[in-house]
Amino acid sequence: MISPVIFIFSLILSSSHALQDFCVGDLTAPESPVGYACKNPAIVKADDFVFTGLGVRANTSNSNKAGVIPAFAPQFPGINGLGISLARADFEVGGAVPLHSHPGGSEVVLVAEGTIFAGFISSTSNKVYTKTLKKGDIMVFPQGLLHFQVNTGPSPATVFVSFSSATPGVQLLPLALFQNDLPTAVIAATTSLDTAEIKKLKAILGGTG
Amino acid sequence: MISPVIFIFSLILSSSHALQDFCVGDLTAPESPVGYACKNPAIVKADDFVFTGLGVRANTSNSNKAGVIPAFAPQFPGINGLGISLARADFEVGGAVPLHSHPGGSEVVLVAEGTIFAGFISSTSNKVYTKTLKKGDIMVFPQGLLHFQVNTGPSPATVFVSFSSATPGVQLLPLALFQNDLPTAVIAATTSLDTAEIKKLKAILGGTG
Amino acid sequence: MISPVIFIFSLILSSSHALQDFCVGDLTAPESPVGYACKNPAIVKADDFVFTGLGVRANTSNSNKAGVIPAFAPQFPGINGLGISLARADFEVGGAVPLHSHPGGSEVVLVAEGTIFAGFISSTSNKVYTKTLKKGDIMVFPQGLLHFQVNTGPSPATVFVSFSSATPGVQLLPLALFQNDLPTAVIAATTSLDTAEIKKLKAILGGTG
Amino acid sequence: MISPVIFIFSLILSSSHALQDFCVGDLTAPESPVGYACKNPAIVKADDFVFTGLGVRANTSNSNKAGVIPAFAPQFPGINGLGISLARADFEVGGAVPLHSHPGGSEVVLVAEGTIFAGFISSTSNKVYTKTLKKGDIMVFPQGLLHFQVNTGPSPATVFVSFSSATPGVQLLPLALFQNDLPTAVIAATTSLDTAEIKKLKAILGGTG
Amino acid sequence: MISPVIFIFSLILSSSHALQDFCVGDLTAPESPVGYACKNPAIVKADDFVFTGLGVRANTSNSNKAGVIPAFAPQFPGINGLGISLARADFEVGGAVPLHSHPGGSEVVLVAEGTIFAGFISSTSNKVYTKTLKKGDIMVFPQGLLHFQVNTGPSPATVFVSFSSATPGVQLLPLALFQNDLPTAVIAATTSLDTAEIKKLKAILGGTG
Amino acid sequence: MISPVIFIFSLILSSSHALQDFCVGDLTAPESPVGYACKNPAIVKADDFVFTGLGVRANTSNSNKAGVIPAFAPQFPGINGLGISLARADFEVGGAVPLHSHPGGSEVVLVAEGTIFAGFISSTSNKVYTKTLKKGDIMVFPQGLLHFQVNTGPSPATVFVSFSSATPGVQLLPLALFQNDLPTAVIAATTSLDTAEIKKLKAILGGTG
Repeated sequence: MISPVIFIFSLILSSSHALQDFCVGDLTAPESPVGYACKNPAIVKADDFVFTGLGVRANTSNSNKAGVIPAFAPQFPGINGLGISLARADFEVGGAVPLHSHPGGSEVVLVAEGTIFAGFISSTSNKVYTKTLKKGDIMVFPQGLLHFQVNTGPSPATVFVSFSSATPGVQLLPLALFQNDLPTAVIAATTSLDTAEIKKLKAILGGTG
Repeated sequence: MISPVIFIFSLILSSSHALQDFCVGDLTAPESPVGYACKNPAIVKADDFVFTGLGVRANTSNSNKAGVIPAFAPQFPGINGLGISLARADFEVGGAVPLHSHPGGSEVVLVAEGTIFAGFISSTSNKVYTKTLKKGDIMVFPQGLLHFQVNTGPSPATVFVSFSSATPGVQLLPLALFQNDLPTAVIAATTSLDTAEIKKLKAILGGTG
Repeated sequence: MISPVIFIFSLILSSSHALQDFCVGDLTAPESPVGYACKNPAIVKADDFVFTGLGVRANTSNSNKAGVIPAFAPQFPGINGLGISLARADFEVGGAVPLHSHPGGSEVVLVAEGTIFAGFISSTSNKVYTKTLKKGDIMVFPQGLLHFQVNTGPSPATVFVSFSSATPGVQLLPLALFQNDLPTAVIAATTSLDTAEIKKLKAILGGTG
Repeated sequence: MISPVIFIFSLILSSSHALQDFCVGDLTAPESPVGYACKNPAIVKADDFVFTGLGVRANTSNSNKAGVIPAFAPQFPGINGLGISLARADFEVGGAVPLHSHPGGSEVVLVAEGTIFAGFISSTSNKVYTKTLKKGDIMVFPQGLLHFQVNTGPSPATVFVSFSSATPGVQLLPLALFQNDLPTAVIAATTSLDTAEIKKLKAILGGTG
Repeated sequence: MISPVIFIFSLILSSSHALQDFCVGDLTAPESPVGYACKNPAIVKADDFVFTGLGVRANTSNSNKAGVIPAFAPQFPGINGLGISLARADFEVGGAVPLHSHPGGSEVVLVAEGTIFAGFISSTSNKVYTKTLKKGDIMVFPQGLLHFQVNTGPSPATVFVSFSSATPGVQLLPLALFQNDLPTAVIAATTSLDTAEIKKLKAILGGTG
Repeated sequence: MISPVIFIFSLILSSSHALQDFCVGDLTAPESPVGYACKNPAIVKADDFVFTGLGVRANTSNSNKAGVIPAFAPQFPGINGLGISLARADFEVGGAVPLHSHPGGSEVVLVAEGTIFAGFISSTSNKVYTKTLKKGDIMVFPQGLLHFQVNTGPSPATVFVSFSSATPGVQLLPLALFQNDLPTAVIAATTSLDTAEIKKLKAILGGTG
């Protein structure tokens, strides 16, 4: 027997679907300026709200001795439209995440293991705010500002980062400058860097022009 | 004869379509995190901006002696994307709208007929704000907070509620707790309710587990 | 005796104050672009969330034979920052709310009594969307577009309007054009209206220049 | 040879696509309440971010002796979702842009050539704010308020306008009132204008009813 | 010697202060609907962007065998206005965070230690989405929906939670229902719970009435 | 004689003040995360909505042979809270605006005089989008991405830039890297630049450490 109470809000219930509860991203549909189209809620499962990729160490076999695993909307469609995402970074001793910025959101870094020297550069007189963070410490990097993290401790380090956007994006300074075909003369004129230095780094990072 | 003045903004006019004026929801297209895709404005008619379902009393033949008729985006696609929606609730003597919250927006209730005892629970030290409302009175329930309405008057009552979202959603506490398959042990551990009480209400409301 | 459960979230509770729950407007403090500063939550009372001014008929003793009572943030500080507000309009037979727009939000009108002919003008080829509304009907007027309501029924009418902003604002066309010191020549050049007509209405509405 | 540094953020890079960088509008896909669906970033070219239509004078051969060329999202899909757009207006001597409002955003006008008398009407007691602007001056017109520009100088004038929306929309008062089928009786009742004046302007602007 | 390049953007630099970079909350000033007023950027230090309180285990000596330490704007003013915050929860074996919702934002939980059974209740037919999470797993709980976490593992557990708001707020169901003066009769009428059960829990949790 | 029509909306008029119309910034009051507090609307004058500083050429006597004059909220308080701002840049032959990004908004550049080679770097595989712009051309640079402008023409050039924020902020790459006390070793580790190059540029730009 079904209780009549069930019917009281039947109309509301039938109307309160995906829109206000969640919008699991359908990576195959066209995107809108605010995210992916919503997967049909009828086929959404608990697993759509779970991401297990941050449980393993990132590959740090590179010249930065650091690696990053993102859990942004493209990897974790369950956060689509919810204004939040996470990522994990692992560092070998001396490893560093290059200077970078997130065009789409602010970041909070949480040190899970090790010691991290982190900081960001403000646009106000280019003032720098840096701090050595220990396990359990968190630090915020306001939206769009250049920031970095370096493992200055005696052992490997791991951090978890949270963002105020499901798609914060990331613009890595060395790659933005030297891993594309932006003409060397233009880079020189707009960065004050030496042409030789630019060419050297383009060669290392795969840039052309 | 057409006046040249018509041409002055022909370009602007041809460009000022649905986007900034309205976006009547196309319930058959995939949704985005902020609402339905827009119906082709060329086929939009005045009736798309009108909803007539709130003119009749809601069915109150249930154990709550209250009924609700929503005019959210799914019922009233003309408000899609406009950040507003309405609903109507009718109460028999002693009727009550159970404790519930709207994940997506704030609510203002307007008493159209009768006397309503209404209130909401703040997350600040769980303070409760309640008031007995007479015909013409309005009360606001801030976004996401548990609130309720009870007809404490001698006659049937009717209220109209407005929301700050086209899809405010509604989470009805009794149904959220007892009308699904959330294990009884988990409910007990996370609500402090007695197992017997939980099982009794699950039986009444159609819950399992 | 107080249960230890009370302490589990003491930290969270002490931190979850006004900001996320509500921000009752302090009309005496400086405003921000998004609303009034918040009244100290410690002195907020249930009455701050209630407005009783919509229970009486508006004064319709004017040439429009219509009157409006707003419940915007300045009259109803409890909705400050919540993105919603209400108002009431009363009409004598033949009464009309002049053409106007709300710069800050969309509107939904609900007919509580009588018959209303309402409509709005889209910026898309200036198309007009009109409808005769009966008791219980609702109609939406998208943000910023000119709209109107006329009592075309045989008896007085009353409507309640909801807005998607706590401060929707209202720009009444006849008053905007003829109740200030905008030079007659400028009005003529920017509206195509006759100078004589402009001067006549300025005289009626108190405009100068 | 490709450096291992390239791999450090391979995952992040593969995930940082259109969403947070840009969403060039696909004018052929259904729109959402916040803009067009995004063109596949893989086929986006530099030209998608450039619009060349504002380099020519607008056609001013009309009764207003003024013309406007918009660069809104429909003309310039590269700004879709970015909350900004531009337009150009040219004026013959004595030319005027009629009173109008932008439902979707605020405007800043920049005088590139000539002398412009501009102003807007506030909804606060209908107060008017006007100023004569010279080359290089800028003036802001807050969202949704009626405003105008008149060339009061001895030579042709050109202005460039910026908007806080990719689709600000524009509601031109004379056309909104007199270029559609809104019944003359309704216009008279909701504007206080004379019936004769309304009929005359409808005849000129192509209105009916 | 100072290079002239320093002067190129002197004007921009002097203008790019707190507003767009950060707004460290001044807890002593009146709040706005979107957060605290900004601390004078001239006295902001690196420490303002760092919070060290999440490095210690929360006190779990309570009936829930769980404790929470928030890093919301009131504890961590550096995130004020940035749309993000964090918190830490520790669980003894069998410990549980009661059913609760966050009116102001979505949450992502990251398991740092142990095994957690977590889930949320959708407003769509009250469907429940649950999952057993292992170390490194993350799960999202969409804004405003009831959710919970239980330590179902053989050892203590620790999780870090991120929110899409600097002031997400938290409404704990058992405390919201039974730790205030909401009349027992009203609770019974709006939850379907037995009066005896309500009185028993009020006694335990310190409720009255 | 004052017409009764004036009274119809007296309540609305008295209530429709600064909040929804405008919020001219009071630079002396504490800021909120979304802008300055509002200047008392009673003392706001037309001049508050006008800025005349963009009518003169910027000082280009510096090593970049370019200069910028901003009209952001701090210089032009009338745009406070309106989500838009402007700026002017002047270039000598060969002048360049260094690589920079705006944390707070997107930019559209309009070439008023001369020929400009402009472009931005996407975070998607660091792809570069560049174009040579002639007088009247406009180009958009999406929020937070590095972009630049170089005068590649045979004569001086002038551009006007619009932003989707009243406080877009600007982070100039050369100054952010070399005009502060960020340790050389940290810069080297996070940019891959040579220590010698870093020291040389710090000496030129006034950096230390």
